[in-house]
Amino acid sequence: MAKIKAGVLGATGAVGQRFIEGLQNHPWFEITSIAASERSAGKKYKEAARWRLESELPADVAEMTVVNVDPKEVDADIVFSALPADEAKTAEPEFAAAGFAVASNTSSYRMVSDVPLLIPECNYEHLDLIKVQQEKRGWDGYLTTNPNCTTIMFTLALKPLMKFGIQTVHVASMQAVSGAGYEGVPSMAILGNVIPYIGGEEEKVEMEPQKILGAFDGAKIVPADFSVSASCHRVPVMDGHTEAVWVTMRDNPTPKEVRQAMLDFDPGLRDLPTSPKKALIVKDEVDRPQPRLDRNRGNGMSVSVGRIRSGIRFIAMGHNTVRGAAGASILNAELLHKKGML
Amino acid sequence: MAKIKAGVLGATGAVGQRFIEGLQNHPWFEITSIAASERSAGKKYKEAARWRLESELPADVAEMTVVNVDPKEVDADIVFSALPADEAKTAEPEFAAAGFAVASNTSSYRMVSDVPLLIPECNYEHLDLIKVQQEKRGWDGYLTTNPNCTTIMFTLALKPLMKFGIQTVHVASMQAVSGAGYEGVPSMAILGNVIPYIGGEEEKVEMEPQKILGAFDGAKIVPADFSVSASCHRVPVMDGHTEAVWVTMRDNPTPKEVRQAMLDFDPGLRDLPTSPKKALIVKDEVDRPQPRLDRNRGNGMSVSVGRIRSGIRFIAMGHNTVRGAAGASILNAELLHKKGML
Amino acid sequence: MAKIKAGVLGATGAVGQRFIEGLQNHPWFEITSIAASERSAGKKYKEAARWRLESELPADVAEMTVVNVDPKEVDADIVFSALPADEAKTAEPEFAAAGFAVASNTSSYRMVSDVPLLIPECNYEHLDLIKVQQEKRGWDGYLTTNPNCTTIMFTLALKPLMKFGIQTVHVASMQAVSGAGYEGVPSMAILGNVIPYIGGEEEKVEMEPQKILGAFDGAKIVPADFSVSASCHRVPVMDGHTEAVWVTMRDNPTPKEVRQAMLDFDPGLRDLPTSPKKALIVKDEVDRPQPRLDRNRGNGMSVSVGRIRSGIRFIAMGHNTVRGAAGASILNAELLHKKGML
Amino acid sequence: MAKIKAGVLGATGAVGQRFIEGLQNHPWFEITSIAASERSAGKKYKEAARWRLESELPADVAEMTVVNVDPKEVDADIVFSALPADEAKTAEPEFAAAGFAVASNTSSYRMVSDVPLLIPECNYEHLDLIKVQQEKRGWDGYLTTNPNCTTIMFTLALKPLMKFGIQTVHVASMQAVSGAGYEGVPSMAILGNVIPYIGGEEEKVEMEPQKILGAFDGAKIVPADFSVSASCHRVPVMDGHTEAVWVTMRDNPTPKEVRQAMLDFDPGLRDLPTSPKKALIVKDEVDRPQPRLDRNRGNGMSVSVGRIRSGIRFIAMGHNTVRGAAGASILNAELLHKKGML
Repeated sequence: MAKIKAGVLGATGAVGQRFIEGLQNHPWFEITSIAASERSAGKKYKEAARWRLESELPADVAEMTVVNVDPKEVDADIVFSALPADEAKTAEPEFAAAGFAVASNTSSYRMVSDVPLLIPECNYEHLDLIKVQQEKRGWDGYLTTNPNCTTIMFTLALKPLMKFGIQTVHVASMQAVSGAGYEGVPSMAILGNVIPYIGGEEEKVEMEPQKILGAFDGAKIVPADFSVSASCHRVPVMDGHTEAVWVTMRDNPTPKEVRQAMLDFDPGLRDLPTSPKKALIVKDEVDRPQPRLDRNRGNGMSVSVGRIRSGIRFIAMGHNTVRGAAGASILNAELLHKKGML
Repeated sequence: MAKIKAGVLGATGAVGQRFIEGLQNHPWFEITSIAASERSAGKKYKEAARWRLESELPADVAEMTVVNVDPKEVDADIVFSALPADEAKTAEPEFAAAGFAVASNTSSYRMVSDVPLLIPECNYEHLDLIKVQQEKRGWDGYLTTNPNCTTIMFTLALKPLMKFGIQTVHVASMQAVSGAGYEGVPSMAILGNVIPYIGGEEEKVEMEPQKILGAFDGAKIVPADFSVSASCHRVPVMDGHTEAVWVTMRDNPTPKEVRQAMLDFDPGLRDLPTSPKKALIVKDEVDRPQPRLDRNRGNGMSVSVGRIRSGIRFIAMGHNTVRGAAGASILNAELLHKKGML
Repeated sequence: MAKIKAGVLGATGAVGQRFIEGLQNHPWFEITSIAASERSAGKKYKEAARWRLESELPADVAEMTVVNVDPKEVDADIVFSALPADEAKTAEPEFAAAGFAVASNTSSYRMVSDVPLLIPECNYEHLDLIKVQQEKRGWDGYLTTNPNCTTIMFTLALKPLMKFGIQTVHVASMQAVSGAGYEGVPSMAILGNVIPYIGGEEEKVEMEPQKILGAFDGAKIVPADFSVSASCHRVPVMDGHTEAVWVTMRDNPTPKEVRQAMLDFDPGLRDLPTSPKKALIVKDEVDRPQPRLDRNRGNGMSVSVGRIRSGIRFIAMGHNTVRGAAGASILNAELLHKKGML
Repeated sequence: MAKIKAGVLGATGAVGQRFIEGLQNHPWFEITSIAASERSAGKKYKEAARWRLESELPADVAEMTVVNVDPKEVDADIVFSALPADEAKTAEPEFAAAGFAVASNTSSYRMVSDVPLLIPECNYEHLDLIKVQQEKRGWDGYLTTNPNCTTIMFTLALKPLMKFGIQTVHVASMQAVSGAGYEGVPSMAILGNVIPYIGGEEEKVEMEPQKILGAFDGAKIVPADFSVSASCHRVPVMDGHTEAVWVTMRDNPTPKEVRQAMLDFDPGLRDLPTSPKKALIVKDEVDRPQPRLDRNRGNGMSVSVGRIRSGIRFIAMGHNTVRGAAGASILNAELLHKKGML
């Protein structure tokens, strides 16, 4: 089988680099186009970008010439977008109109009614919204999105609890600096410190879960009927968002029942290459999950939960730039391929 | 006026050192006795303890000889206790029985019904419980305690909200490593990491506020009628506990009303030397309070609050080994003196 | 006595803020003018700058209106310059020509032959170079500089060793992030990491000490005759540069002799308000000095040395944005005043 | 081929865990015995040890029963020793006398004249010292050691420079906390700090390289004729020792010649499973190597060098608990097997 041609938009930044890392040696996709801002266009990737990851920059990508973020310059079947929100607003619809499948990690279109906001393990049936989108907009291509990095962790953990009737969610996040991009958090701001504010984060975290866990009624998503109240904080951690979560539920399950529901959770997507063996890992040690020790479980795609206590309270933790960003988009693309949409 | 003679029990550890620092040059107290475990007794303090604070070890204390934790060996009117919980259990009543005033930072007796658990700005009227205690136990001296370091921060912030009818409190803490003592948290455990568990902490945090904010009915404390649900986490911060707090209240006040109540809060204890000009500092910047920038406000005795939002949600932050430990005990002792009990 | 009018150039940045902090409540100087880039000019200081220090922004400075970096707009007798090197290159001579005394923390003119590079405790006699400068350039004012933050620490420690005949110096620095300015080092670059490179630093460190420890011959500075080889590294420390130093000396002194020379070092500037009681503090503990514990000695103006061993090897450590930057310029200005030059 | 039976002595500590990780799925060795102190003996490994690594505790090792550090209880052909130095002093000769091959990471016997101190890429010919050892001591087994973790990094980098006639070496280390073991460095000691002292480290670093780079004359090692002067410092890094190195050489090579010698260095041990493709990696980026980005090169077994400048100065960096400890012993064991000594 010939591989599916993949482009990366916004390829030089922190999430763009994670896209390149995640698509390297992918069994289904191959990187055929690397697009970034005018400043980078025309240069070899290794000259346009300063590679920041512990893995080595793939040799073939290093030599690729960066093109502009322009459908005419990009040669691909699907584009992965790590564009800044304002650029994405313009560019992503252009790509979709030009016939590309767009898998976006950007926030711009997540809450738009005809755009699926996907966590494959939670709501792959929302893919059907794409037909609505294409009809409404007259696009040959289409646009899919994945949630905010903080949303993904606890929403995955909420999915198996939906059967108990979720009513309210409180979440306090302790977020890694990589979520803000390479230059996002100065060391003088965060060394030995906590910053109890992340611009725009709480708003996203309080809206996205209900859409993700909502139902597609054939025309639109009917959001799940619960409220989320979030308090978001930055801590001196490189990768891995840790979240303290409280959930009230109609059926008032015991911690043991909640733990069992999480253990039993099986979204059945194991034939997707990026899908981890366990989407949710239940840790029973008293002091886990921890970002340094657990963020790379399932190649960074598993969410670990622990400390399930009365309340119901628990901790959810996952790798914010893998499970929470590039890996999320790649998993979405794998789902699109499996469903015959690529 | 001759100064009041003060002893420090458990003087070599992290909180013991903060006691020495806080009592140094105190206008009312002078350190006359330094007590610690058998291993240290008989040595000069500078040989028994390794001074860990940024301030310099006071020269006179350096030369004092450490004595055993034994009422017969200690020369003082009041003793400040930073003993480990199990040693405190035995030693503190012995000192109280022997006629000493005991101001304890240890958890052992906080929740015992005839022992006041004091935050002077919140419940100084609980001092009257001391008479009950002395009568019941036949002690010449008495025992007072201050709360857990995490409890103090948000409980001080709750005090001005009592008038709105507090019903439930959720608190997620991001706690400094100094709270566990000098050897408490290995660097390999916490560098670039979050540990979502602190042994015994949530239990304390969920019981103490109701006692502190309860009413003395002449015989006992009637606890305040609200529930607390806590999730406690360790972060790579040296000093300063940051707490995300949600409060539901009967009167459903707006964030503006909550802010005003906090601004107006005036416990009127400005004649106590350790009492800060403002017990509660309301920060209006979007990203404050932060431990590194705000923990030393009011010489480490102010609690800073910020981000008062609908929910009601806010952030409370204070210096855990000053406001939350040694400074709390010293403030209690100052109150005792002002009330003529020393 | 009326206070001397002081302006701060580049007042919004990290060193500019330290200038404001250091001049606040100064017995000899008062801030009369605050200058910064066009972007800030015209705004109140509290709106132009985001205050980043633990101390509080002085209320009167907060309300001052920022002016342009232009001698016509600045009302002062002396200006303290924290300008970026390229801006300083143009602006500082304009101020000196216009009659201002300029005390610069910037690198632009440090190595220019008629500009004194001062550490008052090392070479206050270099002040006489100012007459040469004024004659040569026809300036009413003049320009003085202080060294690079890494240079200052070990050069102060070398001063008392000059009598032994210094031949070679090797220095490996472990530098704090604040040396690069607030946005200088991203947290993703330095959390749990060492960066073994600081642009331009080694070159400065290898040239400046010889000028500082050189002799003024009536017309010019004859540099001291030793070589310096440096390796500069960034570490995850907020403030305080730690330096491992090796010195070979003609007289081959023992560690004991070196220690005694450092102990005996008395530059005799105690009547300058910013001058610490001890310019050099000799620590005898086996594991000191350490930045977190020792950087604030002498209000951040003392350099601490320790671990004086055969080799001769030792550790020198000091506060990089106080002793190594703003405090250094202020101490220079105090010296100028004492010498009747203001 | 049946695998060689391997025991781990001191299996519960930080280096012991790295031994278990490194031997897991090893093509030549299988873990057959796990030994630790009396406190652990008799328990299952998963109960005796708290697993601290990011990798998962191998399931079969988890269920093994820990035995005492006693040749009679250990079933193995070779034992890897991560014992504390004082225990190793007694136990390692007992194992060698009882016929075991001992590959020790402990310092106790490194400098003993008939014990090889091995870095396979530097001095595998020192293996012949084992015959001398066995004859002298009448042992059926034998004892080999690997160097201190700080020694290994720069000594590997010195090896290709031996041909230039090394005369003096100065080394300033910035060492990771994992080098001190899990409980070795309290977070309160190192967060945002540098500790310029590591007990016993400089002495080891100043003696071991000359033995390693010395020549075996048929009866003993004649140490290489150069001096080492070290200054050792702890920094807030989890893994990876960074070292600033100065080398003077008789032939006075240029940085370019030094770089070429390092690039050309090929110890030819690629058939050893743990041997990395490149023992020395030369980084040409201006700010590399860095511990966070480069410590895992060659599965943690490569030493990265960079910033080769006049002086000659350069940076050497490697993973201290892999290349510098457990991996070093395992590589030694692979060499022993290849040479037919197992």
